[in-house]
Amino acid sequence: MAPHREGSDASVEAMVAQVEKHPISSILIIIAMQTEALPVVNKFQLIENPHSSFPKGVPWIHYHGAYKDIIINLVWPGKDLTFGVDSVGTISASLVTYASIQALQPDLIINAGTAGGFKEKGAAIGDVFLASHVAFHDRRIPIPVFDLYGVGLRQTFSTPNLLKALNLKTGKLSTGDSLDMSPHDEASIAANDATVKDME
Amino acid sequence: MAPHREGSDASVEAMVAQVEKHPISSILIIIAMQTEALPVVNKFQLIENPHSSFPKGVPWIHYHGAYKDIIINLVWPGKDLTFGVDSVGTISASLVTYASIQALQPDLIINAGTAGGFKEKGAAIGDVFLASHVAFHDRRIPIPVFDLYGVGLRQTFSTPNLLKALNLKTGKLSTGDSLDMSPHDEASIAANDATVKDME
Repeated sequence: MAPHREGSDASVEAMVAQVEKHPISSILIIIAMQTEALPVVNKFQLIENPHSSFPKGVPWIHYHGAYKDIIINLVWPGKDLTFGVDSVGTISASLVTYASIQALQPDLIINAGTAGGFKEKGAAIGDVFLASHVAFHDRRIPIPVFDLYGVGLRQTFSTPNLLKALNLKTGKLSTGDSLDMSPHDEASIAANDATVKDME
Repeated sequence: MAPHREGSDASVEAMVAQVEKHPISSILIIIAMQTEALPVVNKFQLIENPHSSFPKGVPWIHYHGAYKDIIINLVWPGKDLTFGVDSVGTISASLVTYASIQALQPDLIINAGTAGGFKEKGAAIGDVFLASHVAFHDRRIPIPVFDLYGVGLRQTFSTPNLLKALNLKTGKLSTGDSLDMSPHDEASIAANDATVKDME
């Protein structure tokens, strides 16, 4: 993702120029839950890689395959070894994304899954959103500059053609490690101007 | 750290037996902030490793040295590349710990730093605590089993000799990505029976 700043025509143009110079040939899809991952695995007929380069002992699952001339890798953090539930949340997502970048060197990363949406911001059940910006709502560090680090606002990689071709909605996404929404979270989500809320 | 369960004499004995079979010869110290890390670096006269095996572009700093016959590695996540502040919080700590385990294969990991303590649980300014258990207070997932995964209670590696020899205090530690403490956090910290609160 691009450094912290508001989207501008200039930055979008720069990203498009970058893609034209280095076309995307390898995509990494990160999905937190098995029930979210399997429909994508089935759709693209991806195969589980039993010899992934992840360290021994981690539950991370690597699927791979191709669509036209694009290599597709999908990584799901797997089931927590102690509790047997999907390893949701920002820590697992960060670890598998880091390890997958090291192992697979993708050109583009798509973090996909189900999310909450706010009606008053124009979201409806079944909508598909492409996040324009991502930020945290549960890292409150009320010290100058640390506060901005905690929120960690980032502009996502700009994909104007994708947005247009698939007629998707777009909006800002706020993330945090809780499924519920405390009053403090709600205030931060509003400050993040978020249409979409997820946990990764 | 050991799997989720309450401490018992049997589990402590098992850990002690494990250490006797495989003595600790390499220690990894993870510290979130530069002002916390530098006194340790100076005390043990550690040297910055300019050729660390971390990927290019990350701000993570690796110091190394020895004390008697023990190899000491200290890793500090460095300054955030966008904001220039220490990369505090659970995500940075998890990433550098993962990468350091891969690179350095330590026998023991010490996550050290300053923390908050609760007076009513017996903590005072200047105390040094060895955490007996660690858990999260800001990963609320109110679904059966996912709730336990979110809290993620773990018993730390038992070091009874260290505790005795240095006459340290011990207590449970609760962690989360915010410096402040919302009412929801406060309730979770109480549920975690925490004496110490930190951010990693």
